[in-house]
Amino acid sequence: MRMVDLIEKKRNGKSHSKEEIEFIIDGYSNDTIPDYQISAWAMAIYFQDMNQQERAFLTDAIVQSGDTIDLSAIEGVKVDKHSTGGVGDTTTLVLAPLVASLGVPVAKMSGRGLGHTGGTIDKLEAIPGFSVEISNQQFIDLVNTNKAAVIGQTQNLTPADKKLYGLRDVTATVNSIPLIASSIMSKKIASGADAIVLDVKTGAGAFMKELSESKELAEAMVRIGNNLGRQTSAVISDMSQPLGFMIGNALEVKEAIDTLKGHGPEDLTELCMTLGSHMVVLANKASTLTEARELLQEAISSGKALEQFKVFIESQNGDSSVIDEPEKLPQAKYKVDVLAESEGYISGIVADQIGTAAMLLGAGRATKTSEIDLAVGIELRKKIGDKVQKGEPLVTIYANNQDVDASKQKIVASYEISSEKVDVPPLVYDVIS
Amino acid sequence: MRMVDLIEKKRNGKSHSKEEIEFIIDGYSNDTIPDYQISAWAMAIYFQDMNQQERAFLTDAIVQSGDTIDLSAIEGVKVDKHSTGGVGDTTTLVLAPLVASLGVPVAKMSGRGLGHTGGTIDKLEAIPGFSVEISNQQFIDLVNTNKAAVIGQTQNLTPADKKLYGLRDVTATVNSIPLIASSIMSKKIASGADAIVLDVKTGAGAFMKELSESKELAEAMVRIGNNLGRQTSAVISDMSQPLGFMIGNALEVKEAIDTLKGHGPEDLTELCMTLGSHMVVLANKASTLTEARELLQEAISSGKALEQFKVFIESQNGDSSVIDEPEKLPQAKYKVDVLAESEGYISGIVADQIGTAAMLLGAGRATKTSEIDLAVGIELRKKIGDKVQKGEPLVTIYANNQDVDASKQKIVASYEISSEKVDVPPLVYDVIS
Repeated sequence: MRMVDLIEKKRNGKSHSKEEIEFIIDGYSNDTIPDYQISAWAMAIYFQDMNQQERAFLTDAIVQSGDTIDLSAIEGVKVDKHSTGGVGDTTTLVLAPLVASLGVPVAKMSGRGLGHTGGTIDKLEAIPGFSVEISNQQFIDLVNTNKAAVIGQTQNLTPADKKLYGLRDVTATVNSIPLIASSIMSKKIASGADAIVLDVKTGAGAFMKELSESKELAEAMVRIGNNLGRQTSAVISDMSQPLGFMIGNALEVKEAIDTLKGHGPEDLTELCMTLGSHMVVLANKASTLTEARELLQEAISSGKALEQFKVFIESQNGDSSVIDEPEKLPQAKYKVDVLAESEGYISGIVADQIGTAAMLLGAGRATKTSEIDLAVGIELRKKIGDKVQKGEPLVTIYANNQDVDASKQKIVASYEISSEKVDVPPLVYDVIS
Repeated sequence: MRMVDLIEKKRNGKSHSKEEIEFIIDGYSNDTIPDYQISAWAMAIYFQDMNQQERAFLTDAIVQSGDTIDLSAIEGVKVDKHSTGGVGDTTTLVLAPLVASLGVPVAKMSGRGLGHTGGTIDKLEAIPGFSVEISNQQFIDLVNTNKAAVIGQTQNLTPADKKLYGLRDVTATVNSIPLIASSIMSKKIASGADAIVLDVKTGAGAFMKELSESKELAEAMVRIGNNLGRQTSAVISDMSQPLGFMIGNALEVKEAIDTLKGHGPEDLTELCMTLGSHMVVLANKASTLTEARELLQEAISSGKALEQFKVFIESQNGDSSVIDEPEKLPQAKYKVDVLAESEGYISGIVADQIGTAAMLLGAGRATKTSEIDLAVGIELRKKIGDKVQKGEPLVTIYANNQDVDASKQKIVASYEISSEKVDVPPLVYDVIS
């Protein structure tokens, strides 16, 4: 096999065999196929796409490029949840204890990552003492004992994906459905998931801005999962405005606690119920989505979910008293309200701009080596559809630095106010399984 | 400017500015833009094409990447002829003395190259003593004195093209009209041509197998030439079967001599007349193609063209007695006839297969370091439309090795014999200017 022939084949719109895709990914991994051939091939894929079989072969080849986590020592169906990323996305912090309280094993391998706020691990580290520095064996034991544990991504997972993503990033080949879908799914499968629930975001604050693209990506990932023997469902949810009210690490922990107590933001609660129902069904803890939702609601109202969160925090050396005394979480020095300059109805909040405003405050990493300030962030006081008077706060900024003008400008620019009444956008657009 | 943004721009079907193309070619030349970005960009061009302006900008940027030859010390309009390459293409050897005999300056910079036979320089070196090892000044003086000279490609011409072609060759991005057209035209322009006549081959033995592609390439090159101030014409000629009868270095020299004597193969003679007429008109030595053709015919019938060839050979230390005694050219030890296995009409000769058969005999280079055997080659005894009896020779093989089975097999396989009468294919399909 010669790589140049395989590039030509894809360029001409033909399909690759399993052997061809393995040849390409193996060759790229061990440096026998150079970057310049892979980038041309990726661009050919951008234009000619891959069929469902090829996408599954590609995902599998990427999984095989590195270590895979063996979770077979954990009893039950290990269901992983993955979000394609948005602003103020606190679902993981709520869902882990929530579904674990119903006996669904949650073995979460998570990262830090770049973005508007930190990743799940950064957020958990806002809880004093909380540590993800545990061994693989401790991780498995904790899940078996407590049903939930979180570990950092220390293993050599999907190295071919890292290499490929680095190349795609500088060759304008990121934005390709088969390449995005195989990248995401390879990581989930290598992490040992038996079943996968995907939260595919759509709208201004999401990677996919258009609903049609989000659906295409969701379908691609569900097909890959099912083709590789992992039951997979996808929920397409709104990210035209941030989810919940809080954007920031400690702020989102507090919001997750509120939600587990039953008085979280309506949209965040509803999305957790939707995603959680799918997780519970895939884990065989309920036979219908309706039954699953009832179980989840009961877990919240009975305090079982909150109790589970407490156990989870303690088992990883965290101070669980933050649940009753959230002021023990890192606190920002300054609170600054951003006021409405006119009255009317909120008709739009450009989510990624709000996210950038939070990052400018220090809530997220601009580069790999940036330090995160866990205390800072943004609280939305008004969301789409809300009525606002001139001079009323639109958001409250939580900062450790008095100069918040750059963030303030972004926030003001991202709020649209209309004189007409505005409908609240749908939260869930579609479910694909 | 960032290369990744320019790749994305092209990927999205937008057009590049002159500055952007210069940034790309300069950056690639001085290694600030890596191969893997250029190959992705080339693949994007494969799918999204370039408009006429971009093609001219690209050609010009490639010309500027290296030295350019200054032919201004040569009087008259320097017209260069370029063939996109085929099998048995002896036109340069005929046209150089032919148009020079009408006062058109022929300053030919030529290469050796890979292929079925050698390049123009290899063929000329079949003439005992002939040398292209002359200085630039000698070259210019020779053209001013004798109207014709040939020099090897020693200068640092279009290095960006060499680098780009090497990359395209291994990334399945050779077959792109804007990239092929700019590659060819940049070399002609850097070599100092004032005007250019292109012989774009079409058919099985050509790079472009389909007439529509050949026309597209011809139009692309003519527009580039005209956009960069070089009057350019293109003739689209048949390469479904080899041109003339001879394929091989010394064999083609002999055929060129025959043609200059007025008794060369009909198709080779006619194509030389067509291409030559365009050269003579572009050089302002005739005002119409008809007038030019009459002048060329007269140059042959009067012996003026043959005399010009003699002077040209002598001026570069060659033994011009080969013109009257062609047996002084390198001779092969063995002649082997390949016989028809059935009777009928020749309906096809797969030109590139015949070319490969000649290469297998040693007439061409398989790799850069292969030695050419100037004596060997193939003489076609039958061409398309000819009637053949069973047992009659289809071709005569000229070899220096008795084992010619591999070539013989290719030849037999490339000849198609039909029981129905077959028309001779057209020689010239179109002229674009």
